[in-house]
Amino acid sequence: MIPAPYLLYLGHSTDFVGIKTSRGLAAFRPQDCVGEFRYDDCPLSVGMPRMSIAEGAAAGAKTLVLGVANSGGMMGQALIDDAAAALEAGMHVASGLHQRLRDDPRLVALARAKGLQLFDVRDPPANLKVGNGYARAGHRLLTVGTDCSVGKMYTTLALVTGLRERGVTADFRATGQTGILIAGAGVPVDAVVADFISGAIEQLAPARDDDGWDLIEGQGSLFHPSFAGVSTGLLHGAQPEAIVMCHDPVRTDMRGIPGRALPGLAECIAMNLQVARLTSPEVRAVGICLNTSAMDPAEARAICLKTQDKIGLPCTDPIAFGVNEILDELLCPAPLARSTTAFR
Amino acid sequence: MIPAPYLLYLGHSTDFVGIKTSRGLAAFRPQDCVGEFRYDDCPLSVGMPRMSIAEGAAAGAKTLVLGVANSGGMMGQALIDDAAAALEAGMHVASGLHQRLRDDPRLVALARAKGLQLFDVRDPPANLKVGNGYARAGHRLLTVGTDCSVGKMYTTLALVTGLRERGVTADFRATGQTGILIAGAGVPVDAVVADFISGAIEQLAPARDDDGWDLIEGQGSLFHPSFAGVSTGLLHGAQPEAIVMCHDPVRTDMRGIPGRALPGLAECIAMNLQVARLTSPEVRAVGICLNTSAMDPAEARAICLKTQDKIGLPCTDPIAFGVNEILDELLCPAPLARSTTAFR
Repeated sequence: MIPAPYLLYLGHSTDFVGIKTSRGLAAFRPQDCVGEFRYDDCPLSVGMPRMSIAEGAAAGAKTLVLGVANSGGMMGQALIDDAAAALEAGMHVASGLHQRLRDDPRLVALARAKGLQLFDVRDPPANLKVGNGYARAGHRLLTVGTDCSVGKMYTTLALVTGLRERGVTADFRATGQTGILIAGAGVPVDAVVADFISGAIEQLAPARDDDGWDLIEGQGSLFHPSFAGVSTGLLHGAQPEAIVMCHDPVRTDMRGIPGRALPGLAECIAMNLQVARLTSPEVRAVGICLNTSAMDPAEARAICLKTQDKIGLPCTDPIAFGVNEILDELLCPAPLARSTTAFR
Repeated sequence: MIPAPYLLYLGHSTDFVGIKTSRGLAAFRPQDCVGEFRYDDCPLSVGMPRMSIAEGAAAGAKTLVLGVANSGGMMGQALIDDAAAALEAGMHVASGLHQRLRDDPRLVALARAKGLQLFDVRDPPANLKVGNGYARAGHRLLTVGTDCSVGKMYTTLALVTGLRERGVTADFRATGQTGILIAGAGVPVDAVVADFISGAIEQLAPARDDDGWDLIEGQGSLFHPSFAGVSTGLLHGAQPEAIVMCHDPVRTDMRGIPGRALPGLAECIAMNLQVARLTSPEVRAVGICLNTSAMDPAEARAICLKTQDKIGLPCTDPIAFGVNEILDELLCPAPLARSTTAFR
């Protein structure tokens, strides 16, 4: 386990989506965070007190979490310099980037000299097996998306909380660096060797017979030209009984691919169900989650209602409006008025 | 480059499909192979003289090629012992398995002591980028399949040869260990980190403007629950103008997944075109290649004709009957009688 409390790194980031790991920790483990570290050119905040490295250490931070992400997951020199400064100040360093802290000789030497640790959260487990797709017991739900970074982790966590509030056993199965840092466990599916994508998820959410749910955090999108392979293997390995589609209604271009439009919701749901049927023939879609944080409440409610009517599935913003309708659809789908939808 | 000539390892294999790397080298680089090494319990042969390790070394073999593959790509102790024996006899050792020769301390120490090399062919290149799916210049064809190990590499090589015979510039782009050993270059796409599948293929077959063709070796199947993620990323990264579907008509179960039937050809072609359109909207299917090696010639011709009539695309066994009809469809598709097919 990575020693808390944490100092959350924003650095020079100007991309709100790119700091989602720092944001996720601030939102879901605020009691384990002491502050945020950012430069003057960073216009963002996760709502924590701003601190220098030295101030963070003085406030008791045990680990600097490099909670920034970028497509490809490489570190710049500035990031490495800041990690070194944290080690000098007596903090461990944790990172979820593809590039490993332990592959930087300077950081390794410094950590050893100081008796501190480097945590590479994106390290996949050893000895993974390839998937087999055989039917396994248990209830599993997977969040999927029209794009990367559209709220799949937030949605999954909201569904876990909602199920528990109804007395249903539910476990969050993390597949990305932020989710793993929040949950303290998981598999960084985008970092496993390509042959083992579905196998890694079969291992993350194995057969269970306690009538509880595994809620699996999705990654990427079947329509993202960079990451659809990951999303496909995840869908096959998850063998989900239900999927929830996540979407950012104000995004115009696919993340990292300027000029490429997002797929339509109906098309994206249909494709996910088609691909999922390879290992889960009875899979159904049970809802749509929109990130409406950029909208005023009236506008947000209106787009959820409009989407619900258009697609024929419960639609909500899980943070703003909760997930009750989706849980109704998940747990007792029978007699609803929308039962003519194509998606169930 | 891996020093030739080679001694081809079959070991204790009893699975004809599993020795496809040794078979591929014997078939496509016979001039670089001196013999095959197998135990008495191995009923298979690649048609090379049978030799002990010592006899292979005496016959001039410079490298033992561990030309065996299994799902998951792990080495057993017997394989490691035989690799050590080859080093003792003065040969380099090459392997295409996921598990690395260089991760076995005994082999590493022995190779160093003997001044010999260990070649891990499945090592992906460093510094891969994620794919972007932007349209790029050039003609590209990808072989796809209903399953793993159904002749995608043989088909790709046959198409390269056929195009060159017609005076068309064509290059083989290898994506698996056998293809890489045959071509001397390529990207082991199933061994890259999952986020980089499509990016690796964009790098393997970059934009070209010489009117020549890149013929890209496919891997796995969109319908294989272990490997569909790899196949999806490969399809997106290849951005193919044309696909050729490969199939083994006598196989009853998906490779490694007893009890799972192969998909239908029409369904599989349609799904591949649907997925491919994300990055190649005009993609079309230009043919079907069957592995009829288990049939007599009359039966083989009959199944090709029957398949051709049923699906509406040229169908052949590339080894038995050549690929002329597929090349016709690829290079001059316009006025054929089959132009009403759904696949173009």
